[in-house]
Amino acid sequence: MKVFIVFAHPEPQSLNGALLRTTVEELESQGHEVQVSDLYAMKWKSQVDREDFPHLAPDKRFRVEYASAEATAADTLTDDVKREQEKLLWADVVIFQFPLWWLGMPAILKGWFDRVYSYGFAYGLGEYNDKRWGDRYGEGKMLGKRAFLVVTAGGRKEHLSARGIAGPIDDILFPINHGMLYYSGFAVLPPFVVYLANRSDDEKFRSTAIELRQKLKSLSDERPIAYRRQNGGDYEIPTLVLKAGLGNSSASGFSLHIMEE
Amino acid sequence: MKVFIVFAHPEPQSLNGALLRTTVEELESQGHEVQVSDLYAMKWKSQVDREDFPHLAPDKRFRVEYASAEATAADTLTDDVKREQEKLLWADVVIFQFPLWWLGMPAILKGWFDRVYSYGFAYGLGEYNDKRWGDRYGEGKMLGKRAFLVVTAGGRKEHLSARGIAGPIDDILFPINHGMLYYSGFAVLPPFVVYLANRSDDEKFRSTAIELRQKLKSLSDERPIAYRRQNGGDYEIPTLVLKAGLGNSSASGFSLHIMEE
Repeated sequence: MKVFIVFAHPEPQSLNGALLRTTVEELESQGHEVQVSDLYAMKWKSQVDREDFPHLAPDKRFRVEYASAEATAADTLTDDVKREQEKLLWADVVIFQFPLWWLGMPAILKGWFDRVYSYGFAYGLGEYNDKRWGDRYGEGKMLGKRAFLVVTAGGRKEHLSARGIAGPIDDILFPINHGMLYYSGFAVLPPFVVYLANRSDDEKFRSTAIELRQKLKSLSDERPIAYRRQNGGDYEIPTLVLKAGLGNSSASGFSLHIMEE
Repeated sequence: MKVFIVFAHPEPQSLNGALLRTTVEELESQGHEVQVSDLYAMKWKSQVDREDFPHLAPDKRFRVEYASAEATAADTLTDDVKREQEKLLWADVVIFQFPLWWLGMPAILKGWFDRVYSYGFAYGLGEYNDKRWGDRYGEGKMLGKRAFLVVTAGGRKEHLSARGIAGPIDDILFPINHGMLYYSGFAVLPPFVVYLANRSDDEKFRSTAIELRQKLKSLSDERPIAYRRQNGGDYEIPTLVLKAGLGNSSASGFSLHIMEE
């Protein structure tokens, strides 16, 4: 298979750097082809701005969505963005690896999505009518591909547990897993999360690397998170509200969008 | 009062730009002092990297947390970061205004938090023992100040409602409101959210501006979100798990951390 890794950590001599090398080595030893976008090493441009749309007239109001749609359709996106889109199209599996900073992605990775996920590529696709509302949430250009997150967190596992103060890790990652990856068509595998990442020693690295290699051995077999397809009949169109009677009425807002067993 | 606005939109001729001008005008007409950090206009540097820590030896492993702690303690943070910290300390109220992109902040604003919220300033404060776990979640340097979000969303209100496909807006904003603002000590007011922002016309702008001015008139009176204080007795230390018997057992993970009426 072809595996594309998007990596967002500034220091190669870090737990994240070591886990990236473990991942690449394990995947290559399994015979997979691997491409890595090391965003810091590439000096990836984080913020969306006018420079991303050189064909936009200087005196024209910059509307991000419209500029993105025009540039995607006219194939005038900047080369750095096009290269990332080509890697996404090339891949069978995409891994996003990053440290959880302030409960989210580092800015450089958020900026990767803000720029690479252009209108006409990752959103604004398909028909909008009374039966379906675009190709999204289970449909889209990434259909047939798998993706998952490799995340390191500074806090303890309990802090990010069901009743932990930061909130459950699955809820914290839901807007990424569901709102960005599943949205664009990926089947999303459960994340690989490392806690207390700042207190990592050699022994912890070894045990973490063993678990990670194990996960990487089951890329084709592991069951994706069972999100509900937007256009599969579970949602009202166009309000996209889950139909009455579906989902545990006492479940949290996010988990409603995962099918019961 | 002193109001600090952190603004993250690339186009002044946008709904966001117009709402910013409305906010500044309304606040000044009420007699408040206002400072604005217009991150795009300032060409704010989004990503945390080694350049943020010029005193770090070039051959030394870059550990973000440690480098941040050293630079904050030694007062060697870069000038752009120090200026933002000074504005935070100056303010009585802080407003963060941004478009919701991929259910989160634009990268440039995430990078503002990643860089300005340094160790020893926004985290890593206070004592860690069996009674308390740092000055966080209701304590910290921002104690006594208020903050809230002004957010524009492209989707319909229903998409971000309790059973809407993207998840409830309060859950989507929880990691920011609770995990970043309340964490650092702010009392957090309910957000001001504009839906279908890309389909805004003059009439919609006028009605939105009226609602926003209304909210800005009650900055001192509006009741903050009733998050539970970390060190107030509701959580086990150091696991920070909500104590048994507290919170509606059928509530979502995030809403557990808000006190019942």
